[in-house]
Amino acid sequence: MGEAVRVLEVALGDRAYPIVIGAGLLSVGARLVPYLKRKKAVVVTNTTVAPLYLDLLTDALAAEGVSCESVVLPDGESHKDWQTLNLIYDALLGSHAERSTTLIALGGGVIGDMTGFAAATYQRGAPFIQIPTTLLSQVDSSVGGKTAINHPLGKNMIGAFYQPRLVIADIGTLATLPDRELKAGLAEVIKYGLIRDPAFFEWIERHLDALLARDPEALAHAVEVSCRNKAEVVAADETEQGERATLNLGHTFGHAIETGMGYGVWLHGEAVAAGTVMALALSKRLGWLSDVEIDRAVRLFARAGLPTKGPVLGAQRYLELMRHDKKVADGQLRLILLKGIGRAVIHSGATDGEVCAAIEACCE
Amino acid sequence: MGEAVRVLEVALGDRAYPIVIGAGLLSVGARLVPYLKRKKAVVVTNTTVAPLYLDLLTDALAAEGVSCESVVLPDGESHKDWQTLNLIYDALLGSHAERSTTLIALGGGVIGDMTGFAAATYQRGAPFIQIPTTLLSQVDSSVGGKTAINHPLGKNMIGAFYQPRLVIADIGTLATLPDRELKAGLAEVIKYGLIRDPAFFEWIERHLDALLARDPEALAHAVEVSCRNKAEVVAADETEQGERATLNLGHTFGHAIETGMGYGVWLHGEAVAAGTVMALALSKRLGWLSDVEIDRAVRLFARAGLPTKGPVLGAQRYLELMRHDKKVADGQLRLILLKGIGRAVIHSGATDGEVCAAIEACCE
Repeated sequence: MGEAVRVLEVALGDRAYPIVIGAGLLSVGARLVPYLKRKKAVVVTNTTVAPLYLDLLTDALAAEGVSCESVVLPDGESHKDWQTLNLIYDALLGSHAERSTTLIALGGGVIGDMTGFAAATYQRGAPFIQIPTTLLSQVDSSVGGKTAINHPLGKNMIGAFYQPRLVIADIGTLATLPDRELKAGLAEVIKYGLIRDPAFFEWIERHLDALLARDPEALAHAVEVSCRNKAEVVAADETEQGERATLNLGHTFGHAIETGMGYGVWLHGEAVAAGTVMALALSKRLGWLSDVEIDRAVRLFARAGLPTKGPVLGAQRYLELMRHDKKVADGQLRLILLKGIGRAVIHSGATDGEVCAAIEACCE
Repeated sequence: MGEAVRVLEVALGDRAYPIVIGAGLLSVGARLVPYLKRKKAVVVTNTTVAPLYLDLLTDALAAEGVSCESVVLPDGESHKDWQTLNLIYDALLGSHAERSTTLIALGGGVIGDMTGFAAATYQRGAPFIQIPTTLLSQVDSSVGGKTAINHPLGKNMIGAFYQPRLVIADIGTLATLPDRELKAGLAEVIKYGLIRDPAFFEWIERHLDALLARDPEALAHAVEVSCRNKAEVVAADETEQGERATLNLGHTFGHAIETGMGYGVWLHGEAVAAGTVMALALSKRLGWLSDVEIDRAVRLFARAGLPTKGPVLGAQRYLELMRHDKKVADGQLRLILLKGIGRAVIHSGATDGEVCAAIEACCE
């Protein structure tokens, strides 16, 4: 069970890379070696993941003759800042890491985003491998090459598009994931169903209990289908000129929640769930989504233990925070809305009044 | 005189861009407008350049209907750090700059490198125009897309390859350049002759007095031929896998001087001049360069008022600093040496003893 290894290719020309999905992959150094430029690596992880998986990984690399340093960062979105990023640079420079040394991100989305940005910018670009250890990072941040840190005035405001050479999604690491984080990851899984894959949405409806019970086969399938959906979107639109923006369903509202509450108070997936409900409420208000459809989505988030209401910040404050989002063009909010389950659209025509009404309907 | 406008194209496929060279270009807003994504720009400059040229530029842009903010940074290599970079991010976020707002670098190499890095990383990539106002930045840092900031453990250690959409080299700005900086710029001009253009080297020998007297025609020619040489190299090898490394003649030694003395004590061009003499001394020691050739080079640097000896840091300290350089591969120093004027080679086989001897012969 969970022994089968699934491999997806992210088709990005000379920056194409494989995503390998399966259980127990972390401890097989031979899986990584072909993707190292030289047998030198720096593993970046955090204080939560290090005691669980760091030795397993570095021993596996050492067994293949890879010389390996490690950096252990404080855990959490609140540390996704310049000061913490600088700990990676300090370690790289302190250990005389070269431009050919591979950075390996071992952890969730924060570790992946920060390690990726460090790799993108260390000596103008060092090779990079991602080993996401949370459901959220396995289905979302490990695909597509978005790297970033936060700025006090906005989330992910400083970053780069930079592709890894390899992603290893070891389903085994999900066994140690706290319940709250597993649920937060499911928000992004549900999102893929909502924006472009109605059959997957139905599959999640049928298999949510198995996913919550951490059935390895169900998890591996959810990761694979999520990654395949994201990989298809990213391959078609790497730098988010068009379709890729649909992956941001619920994210503009969600970022407002995350920023408004202070980074790390709401998990990203929790904010996306509540933000998605706001986007759906706006879609319904525009006459694009039926009561039945919005109820199915809200019910699925609720069954997954996710919030379906946002915090009360005041609609004006939401708007102000949303205007700081990267998805703004010429002052006009560019929102991802639905015209049915599985059919996302990019919409720039919503009035402040419409947006505020949708927000107010979804806060408590 | 100096009225003719010269245009070079840097051939980088979908990232190709023009370099426009001439006098008085800064105050013609219509030259920039076709290269702006929207009519919104943030000009980044420093306390030295702002009083001279900032109003000229922003007035010219305003006359074309471009809405324009500006950020004035402290001047100097010692400010090429994260703290100062953050002033750019603060200004961008504070003025709600969008992903489509163009960053315009108005200043020397430090302003260009920092603004370019801010553009490369602001919201994962904003458009960028360079208006270099020093000879060094016109002939060197404005061509090729290298952007960076310094880290306490190494120069330019954090950065990205990121191409501008347009470079405007306004020869008129060289009229206000301090003598010391004009000379520092000549070090890089001479470098192009040394590494790949013996005819240009001879032209510099004949026209050095005109260049030092700031004759606009001579300066425009020197900028044009330098940029053309660099553009050819960069087009062939954008990310420095091979030939591009030859542009670093004198730079590994030079970086050791800059870092060893503290950023900003030696100007970059001064360190490159002394570093180049060390590289030539090593080339001579290996039997690749004649006494006549090295004397011609040393005499030209001296006539240009540039140092031909490095500071006494101790050869071991030089080596240690040089090993922190990005051009190190597997612990082996990769140096650019000459096999004659106009013929640079990449050499990884020099022993520590040979390198130390060359350094010691060139310090005082």
